Amino acid sequence: MKKTKAEMQAMIKTLKGLRTENMYLNDFFHTWKESDDEISAVFEVAEILRAMRENNISVKVFDSGLGISVFRDNSTRTRFSFASACNLLGLEVQDLDEKVSQIAHGETVRETANMVSFMADVIGIRDDMYIGKGHTYMKTVSEAVQEGYNDGVLEQRPTLVNLQCDIDHPTQTMADFLHLINYFGGVENLKGKKVAMTWAYSPSYGKPLSVPQGVIGLFTRFGMDVVLAHPEGYDVMGEVEEIAKKNAEKSGGSYRKVATMEEAFKDADIVYPKSWAPFAVMEERTKLVEEGKFDELKDLEKRCLENNAKFKNWTCTEELMKTTKDGKALYMHCLPADITGLSCKEGEVDQSVFDRYLVPLYKQASYKPYIIAAMIFLAKFKDPAGKLTELLEAARPRIK
Amino acid sequence: MKKTKAEMQAMIKTLKGLRTENMYLNDFFHTWKESDDEISAVFEVAEILRAMRENNISVKVFDSGLGISVFRDNSTRTRFSFASACNLLGLEVQDLDEKVSQIAHGETVRETANMVSFMADVIGIRDDMYIGKGHTYMKTVSEAVQEGYNDGVLEQRPTLVNLQCDIDHPTQTMADFLHLINYFGGVENLKGKKVAMTWAYSPSYGKPLSVPQGVIGLFTRFGMDVVLAHPEGYDVMGEVEEIAKKNAEKSGGSYRKVATMEEAFKDADIVYPKSWAPFAVMEERTKLVEEGKFDELKDLEKRCLENNAKFKNWTCTEELMKTTKDGKALYMHCLPADITGLSCKEGEVDQSVFDRYLVPLYKQASYKPYIIAAMIFLAKFKDPAGKLTELLEAARPRIK
Amino acid sequence: MKKTKAEMQAMIKTLKGLRTENMYLNDFFHTWKESDDEISAVFEVAEILRAMRENNISVKVFDSGLGISVFRDNSTRTRFSFASACNLLGLEVQDLDEKVSQIAHGETVRETANMVSFMADVIGIRDDMYIGKGHTYMKTVSEAVQEGYNDGVLEQRPTLVNLQCDIDHPTQTMADFLHLINYFGGVENLKGKKVAMTWAYSPSYGKPLSVPQGVIGLFTRFGMDVVLAHPEGYDVMGEVEEIAKKNAEKSGGSYRKVATMEEAFKDADIVYPKSWAPFAVMEERTKLVEEGKFDELKDLEKRCLENNAKFKNWTCTEELMKTTKDGKALYMHCLPADITGLSCKEGEVDQSVFDRYLVPLYKQASYKPYIIAAMIFLAKFKDPAGKLTELLEAARPRIK
Repeated sequence: MKKTKAEMQAMIKTLKGLRTENMYLNDFFHTWKESDDEISAVFEVAEILRAMRENNISVKVFDSGLGISVFRDNSTRTRFSFASACNLLGLEVQDLDEKVSQIAHGETVRETANMVSFMADVIGIRDDMYIGKGHTYMKTVSEAVQEGYNDGVLEQRPTLVNLQCDIDHPTQTMADFLHLINYFGGVENLKGKKVAMTWAYSPSYGKPLSVPQGVIGLFTRFGMDVVLAHPEGYDVMGEVEEIAKKNAEKSGGSYRKVATMEEAFKDADIVYPKSWAPFAVMEERTKLVEEGKFDELKDLEKRCLENNAKFKNWTCTEELMKTTKDGKALYMHCLPADITGLSCKEGEVDQSVFDRYLVPLYKQASYKPYIIAAMIFLAKFKDPAGKLTELLEAARPRIK
Repeated sequence: MKKTKAEMQAMIKTLKGLRTENMYLNDFFHTWKESDDEISAVFEVAEILRAMRENNISVKVFDSGLGISVFRDNSTRTRFSFASACNLLGLEVQDLDEKVSQIAHGETVRETANMVSFMADVIGIRDDMYIGKGHTYMKTVSEAVQEGYNDGVLEQRPTLVNLQCDIDHPTQTMADFLHLINYFGGVENLKGKKVAMTWAYSPSYGKPLSVPQGVIGLFTRFGMDVVLAHPEGYDVMGEVEEIAKKNAEKSGGSYRKVATMEEAFKDADIVYPKSWAPFAVMEERTKLVEEGKFDELKDLEKRCLENNAKFKNWTCTEELMKTTKDGKALYMHCLPADITGLSCKEGEVDQSVFDRYLVPLYKQASYKPYIIAAMIFLAKFKDPAGKLTELLEAARPRIK
Repeated sequence: MKKTKAEMQAMIKTLKGLRTENMYLNDFFHTWKESDDEISAVFEVAEILRAMRENNISVKVFDSGLGISVFRDNSTRTRFSFASACNLLGLEVQDLDEKVSQIAHGETVRETANMVSFMADVIGIRDDMYIGKGHTYMKTVSEAVQEGYNDGVLEQRPTLVNLQCDIDHPTQTMADFLHLINYFGGVENLKGKKVAMTWAYSPSYGKPLSVPQGVIGLFTRFGMDVVLAHPEGYDVMGEVEEIAKKNAEKSGGSYRKVATMEEAFKDADIVYPKSWAPFAVMEERTKLVEEGKFDELKDLEKRCLENNAKFKNWTCTEELMKTTKDGKALYMHCLPADITGLSCKEGEVDQSVFDRYLVPLYKQASYKPYIIAAMIFLAKFKDPAGKLTELLEAARPRIK
């Protein structure tokens, strides 16, 4: 399965044809802020880095340097993906341990951003818990280090990678999509495929909206028929829906909302059933946290869980799977899933469905380190194709 | 004291004569699952790596790659030993911070094992707290990453190193034994030496059995007279005692159990007095943790401490030391020790005894990073002698 | 702004003229224990390392090796500075997580120091909370690893870098001073400049004395007029004042104490207003912690805060700034500052003053990683000028 040198050279040639100059020294916030060429370049570089690693070819382009990680929400897989990506390229991860469940404020953020960045080449941030806050926080950090660089405080401007904000989760959805490209044998084969992004019941509360939003914001760019379904009140952000609509129009695909999981799953090629919190609840929650009203927060959680419980029938069962295209749609999840009868009594998916898709699910996750590495690579090299050719020709072994 | 190049070449030649092919891409669980050649190879590689480092010769064989550590019990020295070993070879440690004092369950373990391993070359695990659980957990991780590799999820199969389970503590006991080899001037000089592995009183409760088990399971392979002593009820696992007996028979040594510390120490060349919990208590404890019966756990702890207190006379005093061979047996401990009058009122050893053996104790500990590095090295290189020769010839400086 | 090769060669030439042989394999405790040549060498090496990094020239002199960090007090900026310095030189940071707010005791310290140092090239320690303890702790660690090295336990003796103790904060004050050298265009321009190190009100309690002590102990060496001001009872250590006096005499500068902030600020070229705890309070606090008297500790805190509150007028206002030299003295702070109206109601400095000096403040901080790297470099290379010439000639790229 290892790619040959000729295959890797061909991929680099494809990359050469893409315009990536705006990515150089820039940040990665939301997929919809990137051009089609830029999105394709991330996929291409990710695949090339993976192929080179599989061939034991080192892609260590940094001799030293730090990758700062800021996880304002707990994380295992994104944390390890970021660490893997940094390590692959030669950066050492230093975790900035900010207090979880606190909303960051302007001045302190600007100061800290500079203080940790004197030798930082990358900053990866996960801040997905508070509507209206995560992306704002990232923008503040980005601007602060830009100013620091302009003012001569920082010798290099660290590049920011969004490891999940309140709006988008680009490293997840791009890994998801690279999985689709590989699973279906090429991006061209995804045209016209129906993908059902649907809400699903989970006994937990307050899961971020960034995955469904990221999925409809990205998948609509490739001519797919993207369907969103959720119970009343579980809307995603209107702005992102607008983006999805425009993407679909431009790409020759479609975006529509349906009222039931059943309708969404019907003849779908791909299903992505996943829990998330209602936007309105997330807004209220942010406000209550800001105001320090912790009793009312508990109340909100209780109400939210009660409301969720009305929709326990929104779950990915074997019966529902049978209604998909030929009864064998590809099941996707960003993991960890709430699995009925395994991790909880009633959850997002039947255990038998989940188990059947274990290998594709793990493969889906396996792209994330490479997507992150590709984002860093494209932000650090003006001529990524040239640099990759150099690495391929040098062929220094990763394990000597 | 630095080894010359000729000496290192001689050691590599010895290594060349040992069959290590089964270690390649394999895990290290228990010393008794490894052949005599394999055990000797670990000692040999550890000594060669140490000699090369002392000569400022780099043994960095990984250009990038992660060493995942999972400490399900607190640890300072094993943590630093693992980090040192990984760093020496070129791997960066990423700690998987699982909640301490929780028993891990199947599916989650399998998923997490894959999720953290996309770029992992090694996984080091310490899980020694629950009888019947630690080794099982490691096996589950090992099988999960093997499946992941077979299924094309992982590009490389990370090698597992047991950093202490409920049954064995191979990196400790092999460091202990390499210390003996050096202290007595060669493994051949250990034949016929009497070693007393004895229980000793400590004011704490629930110390793992893996050190005494590991010691009797390993030291009996070299023709030594291994004696185990403990108060009634503090038995170690019967299976391991069986292994010790068979080892002793095969190696021309002996294994026996005696009823008192006095008998064990009598004419001993080496003494290893150390506290551990009764097997039955550890079993009950595991059950209570699983069932979430925390009140009964406290009860168990209280009863156990009361029982321990009956055996406060099981302590390594100056008087007892006088009864050993020429009054100067080598005192061993895996550290930290409970030192009477220093770290506790009454403990495992008199302060004057402990202090007299401070240098050998520290040296004993100093072998652990090299033992771990050797285990990794042998799992990663099919021709370890060839690779070491290459490194020796290249002689790239560690400090440039 | 990047230095040219010729400029870097000139700096290396200057370094060559300085006697640094006593720094080789030695520790860095207090600036006043270092000769003038040694202090100059730290500044010179810091500037050279910075210039080389700015020119994308790798200064990675370690192929592997650990930098152990011990933070017995919370820290973000010093933590990242140490990590950056280690990474720049090729060392991987491993944090020894000792319980914060505990006073370390002899035997355990000696054992742990050796146990974590088998492959450690550097140990960086911050222990600033307890008067009479921090420096003592560092000395114990230093002696323990020296003994370990002498006894053959350790193959290399890790060098100790004081990242802040109860007496001095050399990495901070040397970064501060390197900032002054650059800000005023050369150390020779600092002669005769008036610097006001003054106490300032903060709503927090128990800030260490090591910054004011470090400042008067260092800045007096360069012919400056150093003035210390604080409310009654907020004296710094008498020994350090003695050092300041002697330094001033030798350097042709002056050291004096004045009773008010106003007097200190008058015509000052540089002001450094900062809160600290009274020495006597810090002594009492240490005693109470040692005795485990936590109720009395709370009492002490309360009394101390009440006393602080009497001096709320000790704050760096715009009005005060106007009284400085030409109304534009350089404002300095080690960060984070307590900013009136921003981070607290009443604090050390007006927000408008702080904001006006944001860029110089960040630049001030930016020197710390290089100061730390320089201290390590000088402790590890007998001929630092030769080694730097080698690195400059090789000019291996940091980002390839």
